[in-house]
Amino acid sequence: MFNLISLKNGLENVSGFYFGGLNAGFKTNGDNDLGFIRSDEPVQVCAIFTSNKFKAAPIRHFLRYGNDFKTNFILLNSKNANAMTGKEGINDIDDIFKELSKKLNLINPIMSSTGVIGYRLKKDKIIEAANKFDFNSRNSDATVRAIMTTDSFKKEIAFRVELEDGKSFNIACICKGAGMINPAFATMLCFILTDADIPKSDMDELLKASVEESFNAVSVDGDTSTNDTLMLLSSQKSGVYDKTAFKFALETITKTMALNLVKDGEGSTKVVAFEVNGALSNEQAMKAAKALSNSLLVKTAIFGEDPNWGRIASTIGASGIECDDEKLSIYYDDVLVFDKDHPELDEISEEKAHKVMTKDSYKIRCEIGLGEGKFTAYGCDLGHTYVKINADYRS
Amino acid sequence: MFNLISLKNGLENVSGFYFGGLNAGFKTNGDNDLGFIRSDEPVQVCAIFTSNKFKAAPIRHFLRYGNDFKTNFILLNSKNANAMTGKEGINDIDDIFKELSKKLNLINPIMSSTGVIGYRLKKDKIIEAANKFDFNSRNSDATVRAIMTTDSFKKEIAFRVELEDGKSFNIACICKGAGMINPAFATMLCFILTDADIPKSDMDELLKASVEESFNAVSVDGDTSTNDTLMLLSSQKSGVYDKTAFKFALETITKTMALNLVKDGEGSTKVVAFEVNGALSNEQAMKAAKALSNSLLVKTAIFGEDPNWGRIASTIGASGIECDDEKLSIYYDDVLVFDKDHPELDEISEEKAHKVMTKDSYKIRCEIGLGEGKFTAYGCDLGHTYVKINADYRS
Repeated sequence: MFNLISLKNGLENVSGFYFGGLNAGFKTNGDNDLGFIRSDEPVQVCAIFTSNKFKAAPIRHFLRYGNDFKTNFILLNSKNANAMTGKEGINDIDDIFKELSKKLNLINPIMSSTGVIGYRLKKDKIIEAANKFDFNSRNSDATVRAIMTTDSFKKEIAFRVELEDGKSFNIACICKGAGMINPAFATMLCFILTDADIPKSDMDELLKASVEESFNAVSVDGDTSTNDTLMLLSSQKSGVYDKTAFKFALETITKTMALNLVKDGEGSTKVVAFEVNGALSNEQAMKAAKALSNSLLVKTAIFGEDPNWGRIASTIGASGIECDDEKLSIYYDDVLVFDKDHPELDEISEEKAHKVMTKDSYKIRCEIGLGEGKFTAYGCDLGHTYVKINADYRS
Repeated sequence: MFNLISLKNGLENVSGFYFGGLNAGFKTNGDNDLGFIRSDEPVQVCAIFTSNKFKAAPIRHFLRYGNDFKTNFILLNSKNANAMTGKEGINDIDDIFKELSKKLNLINPIMSSTGVIGYRLKKDKIIEAANKFDFNSRNSDATVRAIMTTDSFKKEIAFRVELEDGKSFNIACICKGAGMINPAFATMLCFILTDADIPKSDMDELLKASVEESFNAVSVDGDTSTNDTLMLLSSQKSGVYDKTAFKFALETITKTMALNLVKDGEGSTKVVAFEVNGALSNEQAMKAAKALSNSLLVKTAIFGEDPNWGRIASTIGASGIECDDEKLSIYYDDVLVFDKDHPELDEISEEKAHKVMTKDSYKIRCEIGLGEGKFTAYGCDLGHTYVKINADYRS
């Protein structure tokens, strides 16, 4: 048994780390665009990156360290992804850290970037600004704002995990999302800090597992970025650890953040859970659920609050999974909109289904009726604001 | 050698067929919603249907006839797809043809439908209206209008194919598209009539081949409908045939129609050719080209006329094909926007690339630099009109 206690603020709750952010002149509105996370001693780090073949320079820089290393510094920036910048992009990171190490003892420093693709970092500007950091600050808000791009709200969460013996550890997370969110791996930067005394092997195992039903199950627009990064760092300062409790806390955090990403999908107004049950396998259920969460016609129908279940059926049929219209049934929350005995939506069900769709979040449940496979994917609607944001993102 | 001569009007140019259309009361603006194509004698027919598992009733009805049959009648309707209507949906078609056969000698009659999913056909209304057809009319315009839904322009084309010996045959096509157009197989109804004396085996072979670089290469929104139908019918009345010439004419027609579908993609304002060269195989090139034509971020950047080539690179990297940013180069028409020596877009190239993007149609060319594989996919932009049309399609 354990208790998960939701805490105020964010990274401040985890001992052993310092963090902050400031405006280095890249965001013209003066908001933070450069941040850092550092630890007083080198800490265990575990990361999952984008599946995109064109991994950004900061990711390639990280991967150079090999499988097992400790770090004491992460530099964060927005407005420039440092992607498609070749070897020079990696050298730029080295140059920045070379300068910063004159002031700070850097051990295997990491950089993490988000923004526009195809531009070299403005090194001098970054170095100059980084020298102004208060490296002893503990300001989670300033840090998370440094990585926000089109996010409309701040994504920060923290828990204390109390074990039966009264001992506890802490875990906190900051995250940025919005746009380019895809189940192949949600585009985002996400940093989870903990003081749990977790072994490295558990970090690897649990972080990987937590992704499947969180970041890998959400979709905003089906695109996958060059910079996706999920990182777990542990200072081990609490001296306390329990695998079951940590797993639960980590999954709660990743799932909450994944849903926040969908909720904050560019221009999205609704979060919909696409629950697929009764497929021949979990893989088939996942295929159908993700097809639903990615379908433009489904997304626009959700935006229009139109219970046009034909698009749901059509998307399942097109997803390539085994299915049979004599076995299929479709529900909007608990309103049956289709099964073989009710192929036509009567006015009462239509009205009920429409009412479900006016809510901010609801479930579209598809019973395939062929087996035991199940998966739930999360998606959002697509409206005019998405088009507006993305038609000219760079300006 | 042969000549392809573009002809006025549409199906009128092909001997042996009759066709027409009228308003049966389904389209409230009074435009045609019911049509027919018939031949005086049973003709060879060859069809390719949607890959969607939930094939609509008219397709299941067709497939019941088996592999090799002749027909003398096709009934066409819009506003109701007769999809997800179970066995009753197929019985409805039988009932309609039973009634119509009191007036006309129907041999293996076919139905083809487009419209909303999940509603039974209004049989009585259809039968009553069909009885008002002038079965000896030859009005291609009235026929094609009967299958149009959100199409903003009429898709009709006809050629005379003149062979070296002065003999000729004719081939003509009507088509509806718009929305749900996907490379897996473009959603649409498309009927190609010819009087060429073509053997059935050539019909099968050439129709299948013609689809690869036409309907299978276009995308509007990545969705695949339950009703996609491409049909080739031959009256053989000309007594003339040449395989090479027929193949060329058929490919010209399917490619033209496929581009028309993209051009008329719901709310689209631009047609873009995504040419991928130098991939490890044609399959890999196809995968990348289709990923580009389906990417929401690429589509919105095209809409916004923003030469944000990072989204092109990112989509290629995410498509799962072998690629290397040191080998990649990207062009908008002939404007180089990225290669490893020019990672940053200078102002002159940016202005030039932007100018290309202001055109109604242009090419985005990606040189992968790894092999000989190539494929060109066609896509369109995604703007506010797409959202508007699809947010409440049924009303």
